[in-house]
Amino acid sequence: MDFPSPPRQQSAIHPPAHERVDESSLDYSHEPHQNLARFIVHAATPLNAEPQLPLLVEKYITPTNVFFKRNHGPIPDIHAEEHTVFIGVKQNPQYYHEASPPVEWRSLTMTDIMTKWPKATVTASIQCAGNRRDGLAKVKEVKGVIWGAGTISTAVWSGPRLCDILRDVAGIPTDLFHEMVRDFHVAFEADDHVHEDACYGSSIPLKKAMDPLGDVILAVEMNGRPLTREHGYPIRVIVPGYIGARSVKFLQNIVVQPQESSSFFQRRDYKVLPPWVNSTNVEDSWDSAASLGEMNIQSVICTPQDNEVITSSKPITAKGYAIAGGGRAIYRVELSIDGGRTWEPVDKIKQVPDKKSGMFWSWALWEKYVPRLDSNSELVVRAYDASGNVQPEEPIWNFRGVMNNAWSRCKNVIQMPQHNL
Amino acid sequence: MDFPSPPRQQSAIHPPAHERVDESSLDYSHEPHQNLARFIVHAATPLNAEPQLPLLVEKYITPTNVFFKRNHGPIPDIHAEEHTVFIGVKQNPQYYHEASPPVEWRSLTMTDIMTKWPKATVTASIQCAGNRRDGLAKVKEVKGVIWGAGTISTAVWSGPRLCDILRDVAGIPTDLFHEMVRDFHVAFEADDHVHEDACYGSSIPLKKAMDPLGDVILAVEMNGRPLTREHGYPIRVIVPGYIGARSVKFLQNIVVQPQESSSFFQRRDYKVLPPWVNSTNVEDSWDSAASLGEMNIQSVICTPQDNEVITSSKPITAKGYAIAGGGRAIYRVELSIDGGRTWEPVDKIKQVPDKKSGMFWSWALWEKYVPRLDSNSELVVRAYDASGNVQPEEPIWNFRGVMNNAWSRCKNVIQMPQHNL
Repeated sequence: MDFPSPPRQQSAIHPPAHERVDESSLDYSHEPHQNLARFIVHAATPLNAEPQLPLLVEKYITPTNVFFKRNHGPIPDIHAEEHTVFIGVKQNPQYYHEASPPVEWRSLTMTDIMTKWPKATVTASIQCAGNRRDGLAKVKEVKGVIWGAGTISTAVWSGPRLCDILRDVAGIPTDLFHEMVRDFHVAFEADDHVHEDACYGSSIPLKKAMDPLGDVILAVEMNGRPLTREHGYPIRVIVPGYIGARSVKFLQNIVVQPQESSSFFQRRDYKVLPPWVNSTNVEDSWDSAASLGEMNIQSVICTPQDNEVITSSKPITAKGYAIAGGGRAIYRVELSIDGGRTWEPVDKIKQVPDKKSGMFWSWALWEKYVPRLDSNSELVVRAYDASGNVQPEEPIWNFRGVMNNAWSRCKNVIQMPQHNL
Repeated sequence: MDFPSPPRQQSAIHPPAHERVDESSLDYSHEPHQNLARFIVHAATPLNAEPQLPLLVEKYITPTNVFFKRNHGPIPDIHAEEHTVFIGVKQNPQYYHEASPPVEWRSLTMTDIMTKWPKATVTASIQCAGNRRDGLAKVKEVKGVIWGAGTISTAVWSGPRLCDILRDVAGIPTDLFHEMVRDFHVAFEADDHVHEDACYGSSIPLKKAMDPLGDVILAVEMNGRPLTREHGYPIRVIVPGYIGARSVKFLQNIVVQPQESSSFFQRRDYKVLPPWVNSTNVEDSWDSAASLGEMNIQSVICTPQDNEVITSSKPITAKGYAIAGGGRAIYRVELSIDGGRTWEPVDKIKQVPDKKSGMFWSWALWEKYVPRLDSNSELVVRAYDASGNVQPEEPIWNFRGVMNNAWSRCKNVIQMPQHNL
């Protein structure tokens, strides 16, 4: 194999070592102030909170203070002027089988990152792989935060393209057919502390990072402002079309390497485990399942909600979201009001492709006029992506409770005029 | 918009005009000889035949004489030395809204095509969008050949990359972010006669054609030999990851244009129509549905077959195929022997990525040891793609009977030793 050498401008640089800490030693005394009035808070330490579903469909771009909050440890308090991003390349094939091959490191200040490369702006939805885990928890015990359907949000992200930085700093070829680009991975590590590992970490295929149509950026802005602390300040990865776990926040280290990340969050989490795996045998099962990347086809009813009482007998408008992985467009969204026996297309779908690449990284918001609901009505939504993929009717249970994209249902909505209450 | 001009080497070139003919005037007197002994022949004129399912899983690369045969008219008898491929560009935005904007044409001989660009070799499965239409026909009347699950096959295709030819001959930018690449289409026309339109035609997004990872080639060879007549001699398009309808055979014209192809086969066929569309209202419905591109997640049991009598009480090996669209890998294949109540992963999956791009354009062939079947057993297969997409349990009926990827079932297999018969 003919691998390029990274440009040799720097040497003897090493990122600071991370040390694994006990859960009891994690310091939550410096958490940023959060207004969580309209959130469902699953945990305060680490902060895990999802917005109430009707908030999600109010605007196509989710306001920053409505965006879901997913953390694995204390939210770091990083000073951007002191922050360094380290880029390492483990590229010599002779070291492939060593546990810790030598790495050549380069370092970038935040000023470097914000001034040396063109700023790209990508609008992308981020969805946690555990979105709708509650639907799988109803089938059987699962491991993880029991999220509803609110761990998805859409923002405008800005920062340099990762492919530009890897080309210039690490000498990674821009030829998408290069063996290294085809076969290697790029791993990310956060400047944080979590109890599962020394820090949060994850990786994506190098091909996704180098593909101009992949739109992977190192975001320093969210919705036109610097990132807020809970969303990754001062810098995070945005991997459009992938599960949220790959969009690593508080980014510190980037390593190009022949294998995927060895992080807990890449190897022992975020996998669809086979149906016979449960809490008794899960530890033996991780290696046999592949890590997740792209999202699957998904749609959810955000309003009305289960058991909602609507104080009017007028027709209502059902609303929700739909999204597919990998930048694929939503092809069709259908709503049923009789529990899935008959279906009609929704009246309106808004999905905006990326201005530059034309990829569909953002959700579709849909609406449908519903003349009247009674106690027997059951709303169900299902979506098709542009590749003809559809959602399964029933949830497919897996122990980690990920990738639930069963038909979304809404029952027991009571509609009556106020004077009848 | 800043569109490039194609290089001006040629002028006053026009492809020969096609004339639409009546079905009764189509000339089937020059069809090539075919050995159809192991095929299910749905029609002889035009020739539409699928191999028996067990043949498909005998080899990873389908032998050319086993490959399914899908035609819309007589198989042309083209002499390669006289064949010309015409390339036209309708690129001036001022003509966007004209029905027939002026086209600048270039022409290439087969010698040009085979000598002027590097030969690429891509192994890809081709699947008809109507594969498994029989499963939808059981639900309600559908329009089209009632195919079983055999209209999929895998071959090694060789020829120049379409992106190289479009770059050099039509001046198409290689920048995947260029507005023209992002928004335009490339339309193909065949040198043939069909009754639905003046010729067979179809289009794909220009982005797919120009994406190095798209692997679109103009194939002149199949499995190391010149194309056979029924598979598109002397030249055909291969669009990996897409429904077979886009891999236009007997290629004559290539046009880069702002809209998708106006061909019958792009606009009035190969669409998933909404569930209320049937033979009485289909003519009003075509424009509201998008054209299909990528395939959806699919898997099929090829052996044993429904109602098969196995003259042995020994364990058997169930075999089949699985494939996803867009070059996505197969993540897992599961088999049930109790009609879908419980599932186990299959024992073996073979799926070979493209040697150069690493994309998964070819099917996965899978195998699973099954200890014993009795008359109550029902085999069911389902697959997951690398994006976590799964197959629906029940078929989703649509009038054109396309994209059926419901769980594949196999019932009433009788297993008994020969002496009991």
